[in-house]
Amino acid sequence: MRADARKNRDRLLAVAGTVITEQGAEASLRDIARKADMGLATLLRHFPTREALLDALLRTSFDELTAKAGELGSSSSPDVALTTWLRDCAAIAHKYRGVTELMAAAIEEPESALHASCVTMRAAGAGLLARAQAAGTARTDIDGTDLFALVAALAWLGDQPSLAPRADHLLDVVASAILTS
Amino acid sequence: MRADARKNRDRLLAVAGTVITEQGAEASLRDIARKADMGLATLLRHFPTREALLDALLRTSFDELTAKAGELGSSSSPDVALTTWLRDCAAIAHKYRGVTELMAAAIEEPESALHASCVTMRAAGAGLLARAQAAGTARTDIDGTDLFALVAALAWLGDQPSLAPRADHLLDVVASAILTS
Repeated sequence: MRADARKNRDRLLAVAGTVITEQGAEASLRDIARKADMGLATLLRHFPTREALLDALLRTSFDELTAKAGELGSSSSPDVALTTWLRDCAAIAHKYRGVTELMAAAIEEPESALHASCVTMRAAGAGLLARAQAAGTARTDIDGTDLFALVAALAWLGDQPSLAPRADHLLDVVASAILTS
Repeated sequence: MRADARKNRDRLLAVAGTVITEQGAEASLRDIARKADMGLATLLRHFPTREALLDALLRTSFDELTAKAGELGSSSSPDVALTTWLRDCAAIAHKYRGVTELMAAAIEEPESALHASCVTMRAAGAGLLARAQAAGTARTDIDGTDLFALVAALAWLGDQPSLAPRADHLLDVVASAILTS
């Protein structure tokens, strides 16, 4: 990618991050382009679909989450690691309101531009779950996809204004269902 | 209500039940009126908003659910009663796809036409929860609104095509978090 194209891409991502944090995943792409002083066509050249833009935006967060899962995996008890990771996931989903529904759809759609982020996230969680299961402190009848679904459901709760005040507490309740110790 | 008005209302509700089961809570009101051989104005005279129509539709289901909660309350163990009721709630939400989001919003909005159904449902669940708590078989740090939120999150999961296959299993996982025995 040429230097000016990369600069445009970085600028679009920075603006998209701000606008989507404010307005949610359904924010107007035209509005994002305008705020980055570019045309919609330029935005679409970098990110052909809304999913592609969200994927680029989430990838950074998920890479951090994967790195954190790695750190947690070596520094914390399996239970603390898993619970902390659940909390981090919910925080990211909360930052980009409305992204949960799109991610829930993308996990089983390899052709979705959001698929790679979902797979990365599921793998990070599955690793932490497997570690807790091996340590005998997590129930063994759930897998990485179940964990992904539970995270999505909790993230959805956090997105509903009337139920959001309960989301943190209910994350603890759900974590206690996963952890057996 | 005059006999012909009541007949129209019943017919609209019957058609709405079929159309919303097929198309979800966002189905076209115009389409529902047309299929009932009426105009949109007639539909809106009976049900001024989408929420009012859904409330009337759900009220029947929730009245059945309340009645069932009463029966379960006297015939089953508190744990079986609560789990069976969770399952019934999820089934109704699944029948009317998309209604979960509207109900999540309505529980804290007394002016929403869906509010009464939400309150009825929350009260039925809270009763079963209190009974299990009194019997010492349900955790005491959740209340009826937490239970309502968990039901909503599970219903949302059941509405996501890619995660729906896990919904039944995850309902058991969540139920195990609520029940302590």
